[in-house]
Amino acid sequence: MFAVIMAGGQGTRFWPKSRKPKPKQFLDIIGDETMIRRTIDRLTPVIPKEKIYAVVNASHLQDTISQTGLSEDSIIVEPIGRNTAPCIGLAALYIQRKDPEGVMIALPADHHIEDQQAFLKTLLAAEEVAQSIGYLVTLGTEPKYPATGFGYIEKGELLGESGSKEFFKVRRFTEKPDLSTAIEFVADGNFLWNSGIFVWKVSAILEQIKTHLPSLYKGLMKIRGAIGTDREREAISEVYSNIESISIDYGIMEKSDITAVIPSDFGWNDVGSWASLDEVLPKDKDGNILIGKCISLGTKDTVVYGKDKLIATLGLDGIVVVDTGDAILISRKDKCQDVKKIVERLEKEGMDEYL
Amino acid sequence: MFAVIMAGGQGTRFWPKSRKPKPKQFLDIIGDETMIRRTIDRLTPVIPKEKIYAVVNASHLQDTISQTGLSEDSIIVEPIGRNTAPCIGLAALYIQRKDPEGVMIALPADHHIEDQQAFLKTLLAAEEVAQSIGYLVTLGTEPKYPATGFGYIEKGELLGESGSKEFFKVRRFTEKPDLSTAIEFVADGNFLWNSGIFVWKVSAILEQIKTHLPSLYKGLMKIRGAIGTDREREAISEVYSNIESISIDYGIMEKSDITAVIPSDFGWNDVGSWASLDEVLPKDKDGNILIGKCISLGTKDTVVYGKDKLIATLGLDGIVVVDTGDAILISRKDKCQDVKKIVERLEKEGMDEYL
Repeated sequence: MFAVIMAGGQGTRFWPKSRKPKPKQFLDIIGDETMIRRTIDRLTPVIPKEKIYAVVNASHLQDTISQTGLSEDSIIVEPIGRNTAPCIGLAALYIQRKDPEGVMIALPADHHIEDQQAFLKTLLAAEEVAQSIGYLVTLGTEPKYPATGFGYIEKGELLGESGSKEFFKVRRFTEKPDLSTAIEFVADGNFLWNSGIFVWKVSAILEQIKTHLPSLYKGLMKIRGAIGTDREREAISEVYSNIESISIDYGIMEKSDITAVIPSDFGWNDVGSWASLDEVLPKDKDGNILIGKCISLGTKDTVVYGKDKLIATLGLDGIVVVDTGDAILISRKDKCQDVKKIVERLEKEGMDEYL
Repeated sequence: MFAVIMAGGQGTRFWPKSRKPKPKQFLDIIGDETMIRRTIDRLTPVIPKEKIYAVVNASHLQDTISQTGLSEDSIIVEPIGRNTAPCIGLAALYIQRKDPEGVMIALPADHHIEDQQAFLKTLLAAEEVAQSIGYLVTLGTEPKYPATGFGYIEKGELLGESGSKEFFKVRRFTEKPDLSTAIEFVADGNFLWNSGIFVWKVSAILEQIKTHLPSLYKGLMKIRGAIGTDREREAISEVYSNIESISIDYGIMEKSDITAVIPSDFGWNDVGSWASLDEVLPKDKDGNILIGKCISLGTKDTVVYGKDKLIATLGLDGIVVVDTGDAILISRKDKCQDVKKIVERLEKEGMDEYL
């Protein structure tokens, strides 16, 4: 089994800590190690490092090398981000050269997983499913609450069992729902959170790209001939400058009829915004997460992510504070998804020093 | 007329900007000049600078000289703060030496006054009242709303008119009321905000101290003999180390039967906390006061008092943010009175670098 770590994201929702030169996945937002490093370390008990690839933006090549210990050969460089479908297609080409019948896991660089053992067990089960029936397999996780920030997967018929884990045909993928829909989903019992972790044979995913995203497939074929030659970079740049930016979920998973899901429970969280720290870091008795030098009086349900400065809070409820030295973010917790709007504003106003 | 500017306060409710070495009155919290400087400049059209005294803590002598342009002779140094009654009694001694029949105005160093002309007019009327009938005169200001952060004065019988301004006997002084009482006061029409600005003959106030605070009077008499000699500092220190800390309101005004009030309307505010900036600085269309480099999205009724750093706010309502470089305060607006509790906590935890 090969792994492809998708590390091309911008992490704008983690501004002001996440910046263009060092987005979220290259930061140690939770814990002592960077998220990309944690993602790799989580895999190495079952996938040797030489079978792990990272797909990154050109500007992050050096950070990726220094943080991950991956060899430069294992780092696939995108000249520009085009969402997950091109990223996965490109990585599939590299794996195909090594092992045309290989199975690959594609996963984001910046997720949190609580229970590594359970995760790896699910992964091995998924590998077996992908290998045996040729399906595109998603790891679905049991919803803990009616989240509106995650996509959902509805289970269809039971396809079988692998390594004591049942796997199901996917009835449908749904995008982030509104709250009342999310409540229905959770009550229904047939819906799982979409972890964004996929397992499939490279041949299967390339075949599905050919069917559902033919122009991407054409571009990939142009690249395939150039890999390993002097023209490799140039070919990728040329294709990327013209292909559509599209997610694997929307471009393939929602359209394919060979998708399967393995329900699991390994404490997954996509760590999608500052507010999600609530779900992955321990809280004090008032429901606060206070990192750095803090004094908090009459404050509850609040996240303070400090740096060197003293941060004093008084009477706050449901607020997120992030200090990075040159910038401070103060947001209502339920508005943290909109942090990207601040980044957009900074771009619009040419305040590049904060991007 | 002489003026005594009481500048011995600690300004803890303006932490983190107000610090022990430089409390509120020595800062330019509103506008370009320090509050003590503005207080002096406001007076000089009617009181020459050589008749203006400042009472300050020993540690602020140099700042007072450099910020006010007062001569060292005009700066009365307290070794330790003992609230306003000892401060006023001490200053009265100095003025008495210059002019036993002099009238003095006693006022805090850190108030905001919108309409200087109206203020000076009221002051001159008060001087006349103090001179003619020997009363302790307070400037009362028409309440604009049922404030719970100010003391109130209830008007009694009309005593007369001075410079087209009516003046009344004081029926009673009341401390900061609760909201329902404040609402009653405002509805009643006979209540005024207590500005903490007093006008009286030095002989009258010393006489009243003799009557109502005899032990303070005794201490003052010890100091009187030492003023102008080598023993001056020592005598003040000795007396201050033993006298009670008590306010002029509680110690004299609430007990004296020769108190008068002149109702006026000169846009007074005591600038008692960060939240009060709302009342003295202009707001944008969302009710925000944004000072410094700010981006505010979906934010209303919020004060951001920045320094060098970018401060981005998202979805805030009724919050105060103050950044001073080494410390950040984030408080609910209606909890700003409790900022002093943060200072207490810092003291308790020995975090002296933030005091």
